[in-house]
Formats: sequence, structure tokens, C-alpha cells
Amino acid sequence: MSMGASTKQGYEIAEKSRKIVKSLIDHKTRHLAPEERAIVERIVHSTADPEYADITKMSGNFVKESMKSIEEGNDILTDINMVRVGINRYNGEVKCYINHDKAVEIAKNEGITRAAAAMKVAASEGFDGIVAIGNAPTALLEVLKLVKYGDMNVKSMIGVPVGFVGAAESKKALQETEIPYIVTEGPKGGTPVAVAAVNSLINLKKE
Amino acid sequence: MSMGASTKQGYEIAEKSRKIVKSLIDHKTRHLAPEERAIVERIVHSTADPEYADITKMSGNFVKESMKSIEEGNDILTDINMVRVGINRYNGEVKCYINHDKAVEIAKNEGITRAAAAMKVAASEGFDGIVAIGNAPTALLEVLKLVKYGDMNVKSMIGVPVGFVGAAESKKALQETEIPYIVTEGPKGGTPVAVAAVNSLINLKKE
Repeated sequence: MSMGASTKQGYEIAEKSRKIVKSLIDHKTRHLAPEERAIVERIVHSTADPEYADITKMSGNFVKESMKSIEEGNDILTDINMVRVGINRYNGEVKCYINHDKAVEIAKNEGITRAAAAMKVAASEGFDGIVAIGNAPTALLEVLKLVKYGDMNVKSMIGVPVGFVGAAESKKALQETEIPYIVTEGPKGGTPVAVAAVNSLINLKKE
Repeated sequence: MSMGASTKQGYEIAEKSRKIVKSLIDHKTRHLAPEERAIVERIVHSTADPEYADITKMSGNFVKESMKSIEEGNDILTDINMVRVGINRYNGEVKCYINHDKAVEIAKNEGITRAAAAMKVAASEGFDGIVAIGNAPTALLEVLKLVKYGDMNVKSMIGVPVGFVGAAESKKALQETEIPYIVTEGPKGGTPVAVAAVNSLINLKKE
């Protein structure tokens, strides 16, 4: 597990961190499959917050469906650019439409957030792959709506929006769908969590 | 406080969140100056983690020196690109050298992390402004060394690297310098914390 390191010193820090993370959360992740464990460990490594071992939940088919999509080189869609630039070792394309002219226009016309409008733009461009939402519950809910009406293809969803308004509810709604998912229950989540989950999947593919 | 929102729905969510954040942490931030309070509130808003109200510490001159640098339009330097793209409403320049050829070369030759090498590149380019470290303790420590030997000008430092290896110690070291600082004590911190602090300062300037 490189944990994003690219130099000798970087690898040494990552290795030390891996051991500390394991000592902190091993008793909580013992019931998980090895791939699921690797994902949770990377999230805790990235946030230095062991609580993520308690609140991170995956559907039974999340790893398998996500790995398949990554192996096929399908696009990855993110809600914000911070998440996009954090996914920096993928062979396929990582897309974000939040600054796209169409997203700005749809947001204005329909009175929705730009992050939600960006999901509509992705759907209209024929998106088909993994969706990673690290920030906006409104974007997550928009994807659920698009999938429900057959307007968007989603192989799996990293649903870890953050915040006290709507984030917890949006993640609950995702868990009630057929979409293979990973979520962080409650208000917590965010860019580093989304990035850690995606990069962990990419790394699993390389091993 | 727009909290990054740009649409009506976005503003409404930000406003609701602001009220919840206040109700959760007001008793902890009462002793702070209004500007300092705004920064801590934005960090808790961005992470949905009230613990940041306990662990976020600033030097008495942090807000004043940072605001001055922002008003002068000085550059802002970040350790990683995720932090850079999160700072999206600054009139000045936001720089990150982690993918710069020179940083890659220095990291290889000196056996240091690329994030640390990137600080050396910034210093050699004559950087003078606010430094925001959201990820790498090695970058924070490199800045302290460069400042100590008079090789780098730093107006203030957002020192919120994250992780179980070296992050807490690097932040302690920053607190012992003369550099105006904000830190998150202990292992926690990260991209959203760094971005929230910088964007809050930019927002204060606009108000």
C-alpha cells in the first residue's frame, strides 16, 4: 500500500502510519473482507480519525463492482474539483463538471446547486462508471434521481458528502437503493474520505 | 458568510449549517475574536467535526498578518494540489510545486518527500506570502528550516497537516516559532481544514 507516497521517505511514513492505523482499528475491521479492510484503513490513514472505522459502511457488492469498473477503465465522476485532483494515478479519466458552462446555467435556471447541476451534465454526456461524492449531498441525491429514472449509468457510488444539513439523509437514501455503495454514516465525510476510497480501489487493482 | 455557496439553494444550506455549527461550538469559541471565531466555525462546517473547535489554535497575530498579506495580494503556497484547487476565489495567485520538475528532482537527489522539495522550489522562486499545509508534515518542517536560515519569506502559516506520523510534532514545532500560525493540535487536520481557513480569511477581507 503506497498511500500516495512516491519517495523513500514517503514510503517509510506511510508504512509507519499503516501499522498505527492497524493497531487502532483492527478490532473493528476484523469482520471485513481484506479489500474492504484496506479501504477503511486508508480512510483512517487519510483523516487520522479512527471514528471512520465505525461509520464507514459498504454494500456487499461494492468492492467487486467498483474493481470491475476500474479494470474496464470507465470514467470516474466527482462532485468537486478537490476530489478530482486527489485521484491522480488512474489510467482512465476523472471528470468534474462543476465549472462547466452548462452546469452554471442549469443551476441558475432550476435553482439547484452547481454540484447537483453538474451531475445532470454528466448524465447528458453519457457518463457510465463510478461516482465519487465528497462534498455535496445535493449532488448525491441528484444522482439517485437520475438513476431511478434511467437517465444515468452508475457502476458504484462513493457517497461521503459532509455537513450538518442533508448529508446524513442523502447517505441513508443511497443505502436504500440497488447501487453498490460505500458511505460514512452521519454528518462526517469529505474530500479526503472520497479520495482515499477511490485511490484504495485503484491501488487494489494494481496489486 | 457564503461558505463556498454560489446558488440560492447553496446559500440556504450554508445558512442552516452556520446555525447548527454555532449551536454546537459557541460555548467553546466565546473567548475568541470575531474573525477567529469565523475561521473556527468554517472549519467545523467543512468537516462536520466539532472537535476542531477544541484543537484549533491561532497565534494572537495570525488573523492580522494573514489579512494584511491577502489585502496586498501576495501569493498563497500550498503543499498539495487538492488544497490549491479548493482556494478558488482569491484575487492573487495560489501556487503548488509538488508536480514541478525541480521538486521531483530534489526529492530524488536528497531523499526527501516531494511535498518538502516543493517548499524548496517555492523559496528559490522568491515566494513571499501565506503558506497553507494541509497534508505533509515534512513540508511544514521544511518551511520552518527555510525560514530559520533566512531562505524563505512567510507572512503566516496555516499548519494543519494530518496523520499519525509526525503531524502533531510538526505543528508543535510551528507553534514554537515567530511565524503567525493556525494549527490543529494532534494528528487531525487535512485538506478541508486548510481550505476552510484560507477561504475564511479571503471572505473576511471581502466583508
